[in-house]
Amino acid sequence: MLDPQRTISALRELQRRTGDAQGAQRVAYTAPWHAARGFLTAQLAELPVTVDTDPAGNLWATLPGASDQELWIGGHLDSVPNGGWLDGCLNVFAGLEVLRRLSEQYDGRPPVTVRLVDWADEEGRFGHSLYGSSAVSGHLDPQRAATLTDREGVTMRDALAGIGVDLQHALKAGTQRQKAVAYIELHIEQGPVLERQNLPLGAVLGTCGVERHRVTVTGRAAHAGSTPMDARQDALLVLGRLSQAVYAWTAAHGGVSTIGSVTTTPGIPTSVVETCTFTLDQRHLDPAGLAALWDHAQRDLAQFSADAGCTFAVSPLFQIEPVPFHPALIGACEQAILDVTPQAARLPSGPLHDAAEVARAGIPTVMLFVQSLGGLSHNAAEDTLDAHLDLSVRALDRLAERTITWIRAAERHGARIPAAP
Amino acid sequence: MLDPQRTISALRELQRRTGDAQGAQRVAYTAPWHAARGFLTAQLAELPVTVDTDPAGNLWATLPGASDQELWIGGHLDSVPNGGWLDGCLNVFAGLEVLRRLSEQYDGRPPVTVRLVDWADEEGRFGHSLYGSSAVSGHLDPQRAATLTDREGVTMRDALAGIGVDLQHALKAGTQRQKAVAYIELHIEQGPVLERQNLPLGAVLGTCGVERHRVTVTGRAAHAGSTPMDARQDALLVLGRLSQAVYAWTAAHGGVSTIGSVTTTPGIPTSVVETCTFTLDQRHLDPAGLAALWDHAQRDLAQFSADAGCTFAVSPLFQIEPVPFHPALIGACEQAILDVTPQAARLPSGPLHDAAEVARAGIPTVMLFVQSLGGLSHNAAEDTLDAHLDLSVRALDRLAERTITWIRAAERHGARIPAAP
Repeated sequence: MLDPQRTISALRELQRRTGDAQGAQRVAYTAPWHAARGFLTAQLAELPVTVDTDPAGNLWATLPGASDQELWIGGHLDSVPNGGWLDGCLNVFAGLEVLRRLSEQYDGRPPVTVRLVDWADEEGRFGHSLYGSSAVSGHLDPQRAATLTDREGVTMRDALAGIGVDLQHALKAGTQRQKAVAYIELHIEQGPVLERQNLPLGAVLGTCGVERHRVTVTGRAAHAGSTPMDARQDALLVLGRLSQAVYAWTAAHGGVSTIGSVTTTPGIPTSVVETCTFTLDQRHLDPAGLAALWDHAQRDLAQFSADAGCTFAVSPLFQIEPVPFHPALIGACEQAILDVTPQAARLPSGPLHDAAEVARAGIPTVMLFVQSLGGLSHNAAEDTLDAHLDLSVRALDRLAERTITWIRAAERHGARIPAAP
Repeated sequence: MLDPQRTISALRELQRRTGDAQGAQRVAYTAPWHAARGFLTAQLAELPVTVDTDPAGNLWATLPGASDQELWIGGHLDSVPNGGWLDGCLNVFAGLEVLRRLSEQYDGRPPVTVRLVDWADEEGRFGHSLYGSSAVSGHLDPQRAATLTDREGVTMRDALAGIGVDLQHALKAGTQRQKAVAYIELHIEQGPVLERQNLPLGAVLGTCGVERHRVTVTGRAAHAGSTPMDARQDALLVLGRLSQAVYAWTAAHGGVSTIGSVTTTPGIPTSVVETCTFTLDQRHLDPAGLAALWDHAQRDLAQFSADAGCTFAVSPLFQIEPVPFHPALIGACEQAILDVTPQAARLPSGPLHDAAEVARAGIPTVMLFVQSLGGLSHNAAEDTLDAHLDLSVRALDRLAERTITWIRAAERHGARIPAAP
């Protein structure tokens, strides 16, 4: 019988073993991360599953079913430094509880094969988010990854070698995909939307596309005391207008736009700002909406720069297209939520998740979000009500069951893999 | 006979001896600065002047006159690193040329005593502008100054010891003031006002008061992807509105307001700005205008912060009251300009100058500005047309003569020192 309290207890014990007063410390490939995997595998050992690690370093626990078609349940044990106690590992331990329930109910042999995956380095210790899932999806570029280092200068290549992984062969993990027909992932929302709607759970529509650019506006340095206001070419003025315009763009097009990092030169109190460099991060679930946001940004940058006697240059930092999840699974997720609570939200995910990599690889995917208190994540204050954690494990379990039913229905109609959207 | 071309030639030779492709390198107490003083004193040796250094390290060349009342002509040989070829030393070498003319015309004994002073460390190598003149004015705090270091960690105390100055006795230089009755200083404008008016020269009304604060606005960090725009407490929004408001304040109250340095935390592309820290520098020639600017800034900060769900804190960085120059000498300066060119400007000085320290000590003071090309200063591009340099030496000479006449007139009426404003 499903016991969500077991999940919550395991998460608290995990935090006790691998965290400290500053938060979770399960940074990929460090000692606390190894301890977390040890804690997980000790519990997997009580189940009729086979456990192995793929050529990228992802950990798989496989519960073989009557059909060899695979339902995947994913998460990640790694955290950012001083991270939260739920981000990534709620997914894993909730998935473990679902494996237990399936094993028990189906006498060790569910209708389809069910696999729990602990993705390696989701958080991007080396500046490359979603490492493990991108190796499975085939989007990883091992040549580029080989150049990456963490903040202490450790290379991704060396850190992986330390867990027995050869980065140059990481893409061989792609063979895992051969029998996958569905992927589900529970995650804390890491945002305030569910809390504002006073709902515990939501079905995720997909992950937003991202346009992330670095913008440099160039005006002219001038003495703060000797330069009349009407003789200035003040690069800060362009940023100032843009900081308000981002709110107007979103009112017009939806999505989100964020100016996150700002630096100025010469950066002294006694000079008008000559260059103002900042990052602009824009996200939208709809490709046309994302394009409209970025177009609007460029138009405003051109106008505001011209008005201030400045010029501007943009360089791309990161771009990814929106990844919509599978309509049938979004519906299944919503039904699973309604199985355990009276109302379900539907919302996009602004943050990226391993689910996006899996979906991009053509595997029908959906995510289930549970409310985050205060929308906080990536720090020690990250939290979710126990009652909501309980509901989230129940809903994930119902989603697993509904997805198994969906896979079996497709099989009965002769389709080996459910039709992609 | 006055020969302004000699001044221009000396300045070019000085730059050849003490500068490089990056600009002037006469940083106080360094080898190039010693070379500059050596270059000056060699030329002073040809005049009937006594040369000595006061207890603060200022260099004085005294041409004794029929009266022991003193007219001072000031400047500073030191520069910022990679500075301009005119800032500070135009003043000194133009003053030298005036000494030559006076000595020649009055057969070595002008009507009043005339002293040329090369102030020590005007530029503030140790973060303390106007060091030498503040020692003479009495505003220097030797205890505080003893804690200062330059960018390489050299202490002001040690650097001064290297030129034979004991910082703890620097205030003894205040005895220089005993017979001073007027101070005049030529300087490049270091701003665009004269160029925009197409005038070579201007009489300076005084130095602006400064209110300089560091402001920290605190909002709330939130994930750029998961936080809807209407759920943000975006500290950058406050800066953005303020960057435009500074232009409105000045339209309402005059003066100048500058946001010069901006930093943000967490300072990453994927988070809404939690804290935005910036400097606000405000200047006005009128104390009431300066107070109005700062009041307006605080009101807007409170309003914009409240609107954005943020809080703010301010800490003072630097404050100085406006220093008006002497009305009679401003008039004399304007007349001196009109002696050599058809039109004279009147303008305040935004930057501080040694003249402000002298004026604050109660000595009637005025400055004469010459046009700066492009308003540029403190870098290698700093320049002024040769024709304007020529006019500036002539006008300084006329100002010296007119000031001597003014001192003599007061003497004839029995007033030892002209009445302060």
